Amino acid sequence: MKRIAMMACVLGVSLSVTASLAGPQTVSSAREYRRAHEAEIVGELVELLTIPNLASDIENIRRNAAKLIEMMERRGIEARLLEGNGPPAVFGEIKTPGATRTIGFYAHYDGQQVDPSKWASDPFKPVLRDKPLEAGGHAVAFPKTSEKFDPEWRLYARSASDDKAPIIAMLAALDALKASNAKPTANLKFLFDGEEEAGSPHLGDIVTRNAALLGADVWLCADGPVHQSRRQQLYFGVRGIVKIDITLYGANRALHSGHYGNWSPNPAMRLAKLLASMKDDSGRVLIQGFYDGAVPLGDAEKKALKEMPATDPELMREYGLAGTDGAGRSLGELINEPSLNIDGLRSEDVGRQSRTIIPAEATATLDLRLVKGIEPHRQVERLIAHIKKQGYFVVKDGPDLETRLNHPLIARVVSEEGYPAVRTSMSLPIVKKVINAVELAIGQRPVMLPTMGGSGPLWAIDAATKAPQVGVPIVNHDNNQHSSNENLRLQNLWDGIEIFSALMTIVW
Amino acid sequence: MKRIAMMACVLGVSLSVTASLAGPQTVSSAREYRRAHEAEIVGELVELLTIPNLASDIENIRRNAAKLIEMMERRGIEARLLEGNGPPAVFGEIKTPGATRTIGFYAHYDGQQVDPSKWASDPFKPVLRDKPLEAGGHAVAFPKTSEKFDPEWRLYARSASDDKAPIIAMLAALDALKASNAKPTANLKFLFDGEEEAGSPHLGDIVTRNAALLGADVWLCADGPVHQSRRQQLYFGVRGIVKIDITLYGANRALHSGHYGNWSPNPAMRLAKLLASMKDDSGRVLIQGFYDGAVPLGDAEKKALKEMPATDPELMREYGLAGTDGAGRSLGELINEPSLNIDGLRSEDVGRQSRTIIPAEATATLDLRLVKGIEPHRQVERLIAHIKKQGYFVVKDGPDLETRLNHPLIARVVSEEGYPAVRTSMSLPIVKKVINAVELAIGQRPVMLPTMGGSGPLWAIDAATKAPQVGVPIVNHDNNQHSSNENLRLQNLWDGIEIFSALMTIVW
Repeated sequence: MKRIAMMACVLGVSLSVTASLAGPQTVSSAREYRRAHEAEIVGELVELLTIPNLASDIENIRRNAAKLIEMMERRGIEARLLEGNGPPAVFGEIKTPGATRTIGFYAHYDGQQVDPSKWASDPFKPVLRDKPLEAGGHAVAFPKTSEKFDPEWRLYARSASDDKAPIIAMLAALDALKASNAKPTANLKFLFDGEEEAGSPHLGDIVTRNAALLGADVWLCADGPVHQSRRQQLYFGVRGIVKIDITLYGANRALHSGHYGNWSPNPAMRLAKLLASMKDDSGRVLIQGFYDGAVPLGDAEKKALKEMPATDPELMREYGLAGTDGAGRSLGELINEPSLNIDGLRSEDVGRQSRTIIPAEATATLDLRLVKGIEPHRQVERLIAHIKKQGYFVVKDGPDLETRLNHPLIARVVSEEGYPAVRTSMSLPIVKKVINAVELAIGQRPVMLPTMGGSGPLWAIDAATKAPQVGVPIVNHDNNQHSSNENLRLQNLWDGIEIFSALMTIVW
Repeated sequence: MKRIAMMACVLGVSLSVTASLAGPQTVSSAREYRRAHEAEIVGELVELLTIPNLASDIENIRRNAAKLIEMMERRGIEARLLEGNGPPAVFGEIKTPGATRTIGFYAHYDGQQVDPSKWASDPFKPVLRDKPLEAGGHAVAFPKTSEKFDPEWRLYARSASDDKAPIIAMLAALDALKASNAKPTANLKFLFDGEEEAGSPHLGDIVTRNAALLGADVWLCADGPVHQSRRQQLYFGVRGIVKIDITLYGANRALHSGHYGNWSPNPAMRLAKLLASMKDDSGRVLIQGFYDGAVPLGDAEKKALKEMPATDPELMREYGLAGTDGAGRSLGELINEPSLNIDGLRSEDVGRQSRTIIPAEATATLDLRLVKGIEPHRQVERLIAHIKKQGYFVVKDGPDLETRLNHPLIARVVSEEGYPAVRTSMSLPIVKKVINAVELAIGQRPVMLPTMGGSGPLWAIDAATKAPQVGVPIVNHDNNQHSSNENLRLQNLWDGIEIFSALMTIVW
């Protein structure tokens, strides 16, 4: 009896809030709406992309946040800034009368560093191209309202994909619902992070202080790319990450390589040896305990991995690789493991800028990606233990003369706090609903990734709200994310609008 | 009879051209002259140092050359430019009536690259400091004519030591001779190279085409520093050098380290492994045949090495080193061997500028120093053979897609021509005269280095003129040569004037 009453109640509510539209109808309405408004949608994205969005550029970050508030309020979203000790998070809410579920949508509005000298065009002056630059793409004019956009065109700008496009897709989905008089079937919450690319150092504090506000039945994270096969993918976890700078020292000044070479130790050579000691030739990390403590994948996750499209050979061709790390294992498998990556090396200069000296120091920046069960500080400890094992005296600051004279091998290791991995079970009922909604929107089963290779601040939302989290990325995989010439394939934006429309109107 | 006649003749000539002054008297006259003209001498050096002098900066290099011509002509030196396909060499000559010997003085007027961000002051706006910067030196005003300079003061500017100070010392020595009515005892030739720091790629051509003009009984090379003990040193050879850029490749673009880490190979890690394979932990080069073919030192050279001051412990303290490469062997010994040095490393960026990516490429610039018997191209061949042995496909240009897809390991190796080492025997009669003249000027036996650690284009003069060559360096060893904050200790300039005065007036 009780059970039947509850079911009736749930069904009743569901029926009342999805009165006019649901499922395939919402998706086709969204498509119609988009087709009629492509110039408008792209125009709004372009406007947002022209505001530089490096998290440390406080003035511009606040201009981005203000712009988002304006864009959200225009759609009737109650929006406001959640302040912390860094860039503000932008929060918005749509309360749906009678709804029993609350769905959160997460994206971030900040972007990675840019080195404009490596870009084909200004990273903050969006350029539309008829093909990817790598395929010889040329700039094309932005079509006027009435003309048609080619869905294979690419929009080039920092954050075109990562992560401003998903924000536009969410807002356009709301516009599409409104245009067809449809209403969301749940309360909707939006959280746009302003320092994800800087590691979201203050998001934990912001969401903890606003935990009640951010309560939801599920958070959908619209960061990251779709599968390399171009198929829609969902992910159920992200790797954690911690970045580390390692600096080694030679003499206390750069010395003439002729007068002192063979005698004064070269920190660049030492760095080479130290880094070389960290991995074998197949890319397996040799640091003791590096893989220990990882929570193993469950059966559903293992099955999902097996079902992933075998795109490795295509990817290798695309990226010009004759071989890969990982001793023949697939990309899908490998990104479910912790990793150690060199982000960059620097010691004096190379090529024409080089001088014939023994550098005074050499630095490598590493990122360690983490999986569930391995906390950032634990992995950093293992790395430091490894460095000590190679004979290094490890310091936090540049060594003074006394330290130098007492220790032949000195390594300065500086790490940020980083954040841990999270992973939601694919078997939770609400997670299954998300999967089904996306399947409905795209007409086929999405690729399902137990853990996405990239990292994201889901851990903060996870810690504060305990809500399950599903990643619903929409942008193309070949978007040059984090690198120069970041771009968005328009079809991905179109698809995103339909997917978010479906997720806003399914029967929860 | 014949012998006696010849001796008489030589003595006669000698007596006639050294009529008024010789030996200790010249030196003390030079000292008096200098004491009265310190501000003037430093002023002329400062004027020369304000002209930027990177060899590739053709406009400014020519301004330097024109300035030198003007300075030489003012002293009655017949001066002119020797043109080639790069910066001109500046040549000058003083013909001494009755002289039977011709002495050449070599220096260079170009300087190393500068990275102004690493300098305490503008590299081309000379600053006088009361102490070395490393000892907390503060800027002091340039004294007026009547005031006194502290000989421990340092003049900071690019090329203050390397190698404009020696040019000023030579010219001031001529002024000092003139002031005391002394005359040179030999014909004097001056050759000021305009691209030594760029490897003198065109000097060989210039001196070959002007071989007759440059004929001399001995060439004195005023490049390089005095011994680390601050004692005057002479060197009888220099190491050759060849520079090489090695670039390794990953994917054809930088990839997100989360989505592709563990799978897409990291060229920075590969570079670390490749470089690490080149040396053992003591700094011994592991490249096959690297030390083969070196012409061994003679008995005089071995004896000189044994007599060198044991300054290694002081140097280690000065440079903040708790250990050195070379398994305990001395600096003096080690610089008589070939070396392999990493000048710089570069792959994407580090620290705050870094991004969480797998870099697309990683580059190291190396310099290989050579000793007599090992030609540059031979050593480069050995290095390339080593790289191939590590599995690399070696290319000269950036690889195209096909090359990338056919070779898992690709190394681009680009080397300049470089130049070989030279070494003059310490036992030649004219070389002994040079040694004695310097001993006379400084009042003690100079330190004698069979081969200086640094390199120099003596090989070009050697090949064209077959004249013996002796290095007569005058600048301080701690001059930050080739690095930022290059400086000259004034006492070294003062000493240089006396040494050159002696060399211009001894009985040859």
